[in-house]
Amino acid sequence: MRLNVIKIGGNVIDDDESLSHFLHMFTVIKGHKILVHGGGKIATDIAERLNVPQQMIDGRRITDIETLDVVTMVYAGLVNKKIVAQLQGFNCNAIGICGVDGNLIKAHKREHAQYDYGYVGDVDEVNTHIMGKLLTAGLTPVIAPLTHDARGQLLNTNADTIAKDIAQNMSEFYETTLVYCFEKMGVMTDISNEQSVLATISTNGFEQLKREGKVHSGMLPKLQNSFQALNKGVKRVIIGNWAKIDLLIQGTAGTCIVHE
Amino acid sequence: MRLNVIKIGGNVIDDDESLSHFLHMFTVIKGHKILVHGGGKIATDIAERLNVPQQMIDGRRITDIETLDVVTMVYAGLVNKKIVAQLQGFNCNAIGICGVDGNLIKAHKREHAQYDYGYVGDVDEVNTHIMGKLLTAGLTPVIAPLTHDARGQLLNTNADTIAKDIAQNMSEFYETTLVYCFEKMGVMTDISNEQSVLATISTNGFEQLKREGKVHSGMLPKLQNSFQALNKGVKRVIIGNWAKIDLLIQGTAGTCIVHE
Repeated sequence: MRLNVIKIGGNVIDDDESLSHFLHMFTVIKGHKILVHGGGKIATDIAERLNVPQQMIDGRRITDIETLDVVTMVYAGLVNKKIVAQLQGFNCNAIGICGVDGNLIKAHKREHAQYDYGYVGDVDEVNTHIMGKLLTAGLTPVIAPLTHDARGQLLNTNADTIAKDIAQNMSEFYETTLVYCFEKMGVMTDISNEQSVLATISTNGFEQLKREGKVHSGMLPKLQNSFQALNKGVKRVIIGNWAKIDLLIQGTAGTCIVHE
Repeated sequence: MRLNVIKIGGNVIDDDESLSHFLHMFTVIKGHKILVHGGGKIATDIAERLNVPQQMIDGRRITDIETLDVVTMVYAGLVNKKIVAQLQGFNCNAIGICGVDGNLIKAHKREHAQYDYGYVGDVDEVNTHIMGKLLTAGLTPVIAPLTHDARGQLLNTNADTIAKDIAQNMSEFYETTLVYCFEKMGVMTDISNEQSVLATISTNGFEQLKREGKVHSGMLPKLQNSFQALNKGVKRVIIGNWAKIDLLIQGTAGTCIVHE
């Protein structure tokens, strides 16, 4: 059986009209599907309004205890439930959860020699049994990027990584496609030129682009996650623009991650 | 098969130590169980910090669009996920959801001749099929007090009412007990005297106490919900102190709502 794991992130989360457009397209995707979402800029905005100072290292949010409360509110509350309400309005029976619910994603607090990332979690285990139960019940899981340490502590976890880990683990039971959706058209060799989107990228091609300095730094972790997923059982991995989600799934738009 | 539907509200939500104590006791309750929670004072605090003015009518929050965002963040995000994380830490496989998830609770926006309550929902339908699937999967649903209109709109809904409606609808399939937990010992005829807790209260007794002006106004809706539940198939309804949840379920503490 097929399963589409779709990660949506970037500006689309912050713009009600775009988000609604995307969710409508998501609804018509046939078969089992899982949506993983980020938090867009809303967490940063709410943190500012609550006077909780934010600190980023290499694009990752340092998550002190107050920031953890903010991302829990914004990711698992505001963003997650708004998405689910809209999907329900489109007749898609979505269920909004995060990694703590049903013990879905166990993680451990990140240990880092140089920085204290705070309450940031690195994934250890995805509970494919519970995920399978939800899918079989006809539900569409909508996953907010939080995990837990199974000892009572919530952890903030990168949504791209969560999508990769879910796809990877579910690929044992489903023919799984992983799609990373955002505002760009795909992997571009020239960030200023939309014509430079690559139709495919292989490990060798990726290594060469890195050597040539042609991979945008923000794209590096996404590509690393993509190759990891592909090497661990995910059938297809595609990176591209959310407005073309139907074509991305068919493999006729965006950048396809390939073995060779 | 038995099912315990437990509503927890009041100060215990605001106090980490009390909440943890309660959740530990909740974990050891045997068999199928559902926890419904309120938001305590946290929503009011966060609204204040975000400069979202709050207005109450007869103890009900007027929910304008900004307040709806606040309660969505606090109820479905912060409070719900903290409870679920702790339950997971105690080895209870909880899943935190609200009425929009899995189309669990459909409602309509309240129409009121005198006041505009804003985005407040009155319950129309509980999806017992999905709730049953979650229970059968070995999960313990933890329900935040939000519902939806099935057309994309979230609605703020009273947690006592949600607990009553869940218990009432599930009683078609389970021998259901509904427990309202809070800081008081039960229904008291003298609010200043803990010895005045009634062991039982019947419809007739309730009417008499009302005539005598001996029912505290905050207790009225809880008692109305209780009698409704009892008259619509719920086997046992008990009101009492959260620290005695084990005794409340056994019927040896708190106030039991009885037919006659």
